[in-house]
Amino acid sequence: MVTSEIDQRCIDTIRVLAADITRGANSGHPGAPMGCAPMANTLFMNHVRVNPRNPDWPNRDRFLLSNGHACALQYILLHLLGFKMSMDDLKNFRRVGSLTPGHPERELTEGIEVTTGPLGQGISNAVGLAIAEQNMAATFNKPNYPIFDNYTFVILGDGCLQEGVQSEACSLAGHLQLGKLIALYDDNHITIDGDTAVSFTEDVLKRFEAYGWHTQVVTDGDHNTDSINQAIENAKAVTDKPSIIKIFTTIGFGSKHQGEEKTHGSPLDPEDIKQLKQRFGFNPDEKYVIPPEVYEHYHERARQCDEIEKEWTKMLTNYVNEFPKEGAELKRRLEGRLPEGWMNALPRYTPKDAPTATRKLSEAVINALASEVIPELIGGSADLTGSNNTRWKSAVDFQPPSTNLGSYSGRYIRYGVREHGMFAIMNGIAAYQGLIPFGGTFLNFLTYGWGAARLSALSHSRVIYVMTHDSIGLGEDGPTHQPIETLSLTRACPNMLTFRPADGNETSGAYMAALKRDTIPSILALTRQNLPHLNGSSPEIVEKGGYVLEPLSDPNPDVTFVATGSEVSIAADGADIARKSGLKVRVVSMPCTELFDEQSLQYRQSVFPRGVPVVAVEALSTFGWQKYSHAQVGMTTFGSSGEYKEVYAHFKITPQHVADMGRDAVQYFKNYGSVPDLFPQFGPCA
Amino acid sequence: MVTSEIDQRCIDTIRVLAADITRGANSGHPGAPMGCAPMANTLFMNHVRVNPRNPDWPNRDRFLLSNGHACALQYILLHLLGFKMSMDDLKNFRRVGSLTPGHPERELTEGIEVTTGPLGQGISNAVGLAIAEQNMAATFNKPNYPIFDNYTFVILGDGCLQEGVQSEACSLAGHLQLGKLIALYDDNHITIDGDTAVSFTEDVLKRFEAYGWHTQVVTDGDHNTDSINQAIENAKAVTDKPSIIKIFTTIGFGSKHQGEEKTHGSPLDPEDIKQLKQRFGFNPDEKYVIPPEVYEHYHERARQCDEIEKEWTKMLTNYVNEFPKEGAELKRRLEGRLPEGWMNALPRYTPKDAPTATRKLSEAVINALASEVIPELIGGSADLTGSNNTRWKSAVDFQPPSTNLGSYSGRYIRYGVREHGMFAIMNGIAAYQGLIPFGGTFLNFLTYGWGAARLSALSHSRVIYVMTHDSIGLGEDGPTHQPIETLSLTRACPNMLTFRPADGNETSGAYMAALKRDTIPSILALTRQNLPHLNGSSPEIVEKGGYVLEPLSDPNPDVTFVATGSEVSIAADGADIARKSGLKVRVVSMPCTELFDEQSLQYRQSVFPRGVPVVAVEALSTFGWQKYSHAQVGMTTFGSSGEYKEVYAHFKITPQHVADMGRDAVQYFKNYGSVPDLFPQFGPCA
Repeated sequence: MVTSEIDQRCIDTIRVLAADITRGANSGHPGAPMGCAPMANTLFMNHVRVNPRNPDWPNRDRFLLSNGHACALQYILLHLLGFKMSMDDLKNFRRVGSLTPGHPERELTEGIEVTTGPLGQGISNAVGLAIAEQNMAATFNKPNYPIFDNYTFVILGDGCLQEGVQSEACSLAGHLQLGKLIALYDDNHITIDGDTAVSFTEDVLKRFEAYGWHTQVVTDGDHNTDSINQAIENAKAVTDKPSIIKIFTTIGFGSKHQGEEKTHGSPLDPEDIKQLKQRFGFNPDEKYVIPPEVYEHYHERARQCDEIEKEWTKMLTNYVNEFPKEGAELKRRLEGRLPEGWMNALPRYTPKDAPTATRKLSEAVINALASEVIPELIGGSADLTGSNNTRWKSAVDFQPPSTNLGSYSGRYIRYGVREHGMFAIMNGIAAYQGLIPFGGTFLNFLTYGWGAARLSALSHSRVIYVMTHDSIGLGEDGPTHQPIETLSLTRACPNMLTFRPADGNETSGAYMAALKRDTIPSILALTRQNLPHLNGSSPEIVEKGGYVLEPLSDPNPDVTFVATGSEVSIAADGADIARKSGLKVRVVSMPCTELFDEQSLQYRQSVFPRGVPVVAVEALSTFGWQKYSHAQVGMTTFGSSGEYKEVYAHFKITPQHVADMGRDAVQYFKNYGSVPDLFPQFGPCA
Repeated sequence: MVTSEIDQRCIDTIRVLAADITRGANSGHPGAPMGCAPMANTLFMNHVRVNPRNPDWPNRDRFLLSNGHACALQYILLHLLGFKMSMDDLKNFRRVGSLTPGHPERELTEGIEVTTGPLGQGISNAVGLAIAEQNMAATFNKPNYPIFDNYTFVILGDGCLQEGVQSEACSLAGHLQLGKLIALYDDNHITIDGDTAVSFTEDVLKRFEAYGWHTQVVTDGDHNTDSINQAIENAKAVTDKPSIIKIFTTIGFGSKHQGEEKTHGSPLDPEDIKQLKQRFGFNPDEKYVIPPEVYEHYHERARQCDEIEKEWTKMLTNYVNEFPKEGAELKRRLEGRLPEGWMNALPRYTPKDAPTATRKLSEAVINALASEVIPELIGGSADLTGSNNTRWKSAVDFQPPSTNLGSYSGRYIRYGVREHGMFAIMNGIAAYQGLIPFGGTFLNFLTYGWGAARLSALSHSRVIYVMTHDSIGLGEDGPTHQPIETLSLTRACPNMLTFRPADGNETSGAYMAALKRDTIPSILALTRQNLPHLNGSSPEIVEKGGYVLEPLSDPNPDVTFVATGSEVSIAADGADIARKSGLKVRVVSMPCTELFDEQSLQYRQSVFPRGVPVVAVEALSTFGWQKYSHAQVGMTTFGSSGEYKEVYAHFKITPQHVADMGRDAVQYFKNYGSVPDLFPQFGPCA
């Protein structure tokens, strides 16, 4: 027996339904769902343990569709199992406001573990989910209490396997020996440009062997579900390596154009769908049909999973009784509550403290929090640990025990020089419950992995990006490493906070604000160079986004200087110079423009009084600062390699230049007659 | 004989000098130069053919230091050979304004082929240079006239080999069978975080075998230069595969801390340098010493290369005589002159032409130019050919002849789903002489490879990014594919032009402006959806960046609407609505803000008259538009999956909303008393 009758019926139903759904939307990808139906049905019927009655069951298996364009398949599976996904939702595929967007979105749809579609992300997220499982298991499991032992299953295609982010993450997965990660590679030999022969002829499995993965091949993935099932069983039996199973399939199986690229990205034509239905024993004149026996088969599987979860919940109850301390901690972490009083651990500073780089001040926060106060923090760096200062004193590396370099309960990840992989893995870790990932690299290399970072924002993931060496202030490494343009990107990105703290209190405040928001990623832009501690800063005030540095400032100024991070002290020094020439100057520190935007108009106008010209100072592109200022001191070219003070002088980001700009602004607007309002309140949405 | 006495002296000189240079700068990376000195000396003495007397010799071998942080090595080699790199330049290592920045920069320093440092880029650029060589050879070589037959040599380290961009490019290089690409892998087992055992344990050579590369190992790269040399000879003998040679070395060889991470990223201490000099037979009290025999050895090599070039130039002269047509064409292309009258081939449109997507209009330009008019164009797509519309009708694929899928003289590259790799490869192609690369993907995936794209800008490379599906207008694929934030990045990036053309004439104009600028990369943001042709557009006017759509506009307006791309026609429709309520409205199309910024104040004020409020309309983040407008209609959240017109309506990017915003702006500023000046002229630099 290769495939049972009922399984074949389920597989054919999925294929026909995928054709109907994409046809109904007049948009979408029928080919991959039709080709992947056998492996998906096999996976869900026999392996994936998820429970529609409790989609957040902590020990559920994670299923990720890395080729997210095939999401009609995933939506159909969710519907069949009984998740919150109605037939109407399926019919609303790819419509505004639906639960069934063109690619699956975690923040939107129950049962979607991660947001996929941008190729290579899902498989890389899966590495993060598998890391999270190993870490939670090593942290909480006790003899006879396997609280965490779920699998992470992925379906992925040729597209994902060509993306660099996938290479990075999968290389690390092999190193980490993540035995509960199982990937099913849908090898249909077709990409958008045609046969993979035009560009993708590498030996994929040999590459994965080189990474340290277990590899298998299933030669007939269209029919032989037994061999798919056996391969998955084999993969489960290998506990010290991630597994990839290459499954040969036919894209658009059942279509007149099966095996052709044209089934990939657009609906089948109506005639083709008719013959498809006839071929698979469906009424060609009916649409969106699910035979009762198919529902029953899937609902029975859901009931099995519900039983499995009930057993697990019983075990958890016993665990909590036997290990009340661990049980309470586990409960807290699964509920996503931070420990009581954690904010008290944040370091605080006065202007008498020694000038310090914010990357070092960030290290002080990490030391204060990550060791014991917030044990769900799981950190790392893309091979810049000593530069990013991301490792706390008592940290243990997350490593396979056999390496003698750490343990799976360790919470410091050596990501290697793999920025994009790190970001995608962090998204995966954040998608598990009970862990908060942070990771470091130079700010300039945030854009090596923006594909993943924007998905942190879109998918509402609390990921903390510790981005050091944040401006021309990094000095000697030069313009190849000086991020002029990067914060324009992060500030333009919705649902993301960009912090550029100016001193110790603001650095503590940035972490405070970032950690408090459990559906928003944060970018911490941190200096290489030392900065003085400000008079008037506090961790709490960072929540306001921007504030007046009172002791330095005039209540009724002629001009306001606004700055971020390393330039706040330059602006303050510029204010001192300007004051000597008789100007009344206010200095505003703006650690987070996005939080400032959230404040009331009254507050914003209290910081930037109407009629007072504002000069912005930031050692990055001036682009975007027109929103908060009337003149800008910053970068309009790439930076330069040199000692950082010389670089600042070269680009005229100096106290004297700030003072000069302030003087000229006052004069100009006096002549002009009025100062533009920074916060005009009008428009149909105002 | 393992290493000759003079070669050993050269190697030791390089090591000592690298220690002096980094010590002198009090910054930099001595470890890799010291470890790589034997392979570098072997390579340059016996293989790399470059000529300091003619650094631009078209058939020179290309040498790339992919681990660009080791650039002290490269600068020393350039100095020894006699390039424009004095001892004073070496002493000015990592100083502002020097020729010797912290990482090598192509636009700055003679003999530097590509800008490296950001890891993974150099090896990926090398793939582009090797593609370019193959293509130029296949195009111009004749029997007995091997005009192009140079090698591309790369040194790279563990860091580069972990980066995804490298995986993408090297996989493609294997597919393309680039036999003249030879990579020397400096395997010193050390990264910044310590031993590679902490994160990088894959079998690198097995991976490269999987890609289709030829692989070799040299076990003693510290001493056995004979085996390094033999391995390079072997690699040259393999003509249908790229080669990688893994060479075991000791980082910081000669230092007291050789083999340790601490020699990687900071200068050796003075005592260590003294013992180093003693160990290698140098006077410990002297600095920056190059023995005369070392100079002589390198200058002799340079003389050899000069002879080789003379022979080549003779051959070229004969070639030009025998094949005058090809010779003239070759001369033109090597001089970087575009063909006479190429602009006449650009398509032109009137409002009567059918509405068309700008991606299709881009295809029309490519069809008009790439086939015959500008034969140095070499295009491609990251597996989205049919969506990006990047392939011209007569295109032949660039493929190894053995595949029967194309030829090496083909100029259409199937990049596969490898965006970052594609961008880095395009930088490499642009760095060769005689080719102009363009490549397509969705605009959203520009940020999969921004690491390479920013280097196009920094290194002054004419690379054309054909970025389609440029906004929420892509519709059903949803927010995972809708680039809200991306143009904030490109516009904040120095030396890069962002074009968002609104119709056929502007699309032609965008290509015209992009092609005319041979030291600037251009981003073309193009729609999926159809757009009407505007009344008043022209290819030439795009050079102004922004202009008044005269026929639609009032000479003395109450309000101005400025828009780009697909929103220009929405703004024009909004103007019609607003006019019905009695307002005088001007419409400005702004295909390129950066070119607009270059215009005279007089011109800019003629477009945006003082005292007239401006409403900006763009279906992307409003971030940054405060520079050109007083109110914005655009995106402040992620987009949505749905039919594009519904998505526009959902986010209120509609003619009615634009009209409403215009009406409110007029009213608001009437009450406020004055309209802010968009172009205040003041400040110490004004």
